Amino acid sequence: MELLEERIRRDGIVREGNILKVDNFLNHQLDIDLFEELGAEFARRFADAPVTKILTIEASGIAIASITARYFHVPVLFAKKAQSVNLDGTLYATKVESFTHKRVYDVIVSARFLTADDHVLIIDDFLANGCAALGLVDLVEQAGATIEGIGIAVEKGFQKGGQELRDRGYRVESLAIVESMDAATGEIVFRH
Amino acid sequence: MELLEERIRRDGIVREGNILKVDNFLNHQLDIDLFEELGAEFARRFADAPVTKILTIEASGIAIASITARYFHVPVLFAKKAQSVNLDGTLYATKVESFTHKRVYDVIVSARFLTADDHVLIIDDFLANGCAALGLVDLVEQAGATIEGIGIAVEKGFQKGGQELRDRGYRVESLAIVESMDAATGEIVFRH
Repeated sequence: MELLEERIRRDGIVREGNILKVDNFLNHQLDIDLFEELGAEFARRFADAPVTKILTIEASGIAIASITARYFHVPVLFAKKAQSVNLDGTLYATKVESFTHKRVYDVIVSARFLTADDHVLIIDDFLANGCAALGLVDLVEQAGATIEGIGIAVEKGFQKGGQELRDRGYRVESLAIVESMDAATGEIVFRH
Repeated sequence: MELLEERIRRDGIVREGNILKVDNFLNHQLDIDLFEELGAEFARRFADAPVTKILTIEASGIAIASITARYFHVPVLFAKKAQSVNLDGTLYATKVESFTHKRVYDVIVSARFLTADDHVLIIDDFLANGCAALGLVDLVEQAGATIEGIGIAVEKGFQKGGQELRDRGYRVESLAIVESMDAATGEIVFRH
């Protein structure tokens, strides 16, 4: 998506260690007018999917999921990072490793809000090694719900997450895929 | 706001210990069509305020802040719960005690995104003892920015947060104020 690629080129900052900082419009300060364009694009790409619910993970996925949900008129469910998990049948839980924080979180959703009748669109702001998305896939599968697809704002195409999800047969739509980036020059190359 | 009060009466669950569970539409599963109505109401109530930025706190404030920002066409900034804080002048930090989790978090925003020129509308889903809102107020004051007001979806009027913020001179607009609630009968009374 040209609009998003331009914005990443203009405002993204490449750092050593495969870090792409986009915190001035995507995951700390949020450009909601841009998010509306991204949401509309997800709606176009998944127009044929009978989505009943959008699933994301706290915290930075919530805004893009919420704006996208406007176009589908379905609820958003966000998976929560839990302090402790008491598996009493009222929730689904999985473990997600954070690339940024170098730790493993328990992540939960209430079983009341994800059922076998649901057709789920997973939305997140970033896809890198795929841990968050795979955790969300696991939660949907525990509920016996159907995954209609996975919509990502920015995918780091040189990390394994996108390939792994596509190899498992999921429909992944990333609005911008970074093919390579160079911390020395700041150059960012996109996959088309 | 009648629409929100009706929804709380219908779907809210009152538990012992002053707990009001609204996780099926407000802070776990999110009814985005309802959020649009809440956002429009915030826009009406703060129509005279020259808002340049909406500030909220992760995680459950992000969705309502993002939908509300659509009406103001301003960015959202969400304060993050930090693992560790390194005060090097690039961020503002404060401490927030969580009523739900019974612990104290360090909460930060990048100083790049909050400046003395900003006119800030603070938005959150819930106001009870006011710790989160007071933390956000502290961050805005550190930046030397102007607080235009505080917009809350659900205020528990029998806890001290709303009074304390109003006593300090802030304009607080809560879309539903719970005057009292009864865990035994499930009855919820609203303030008008």
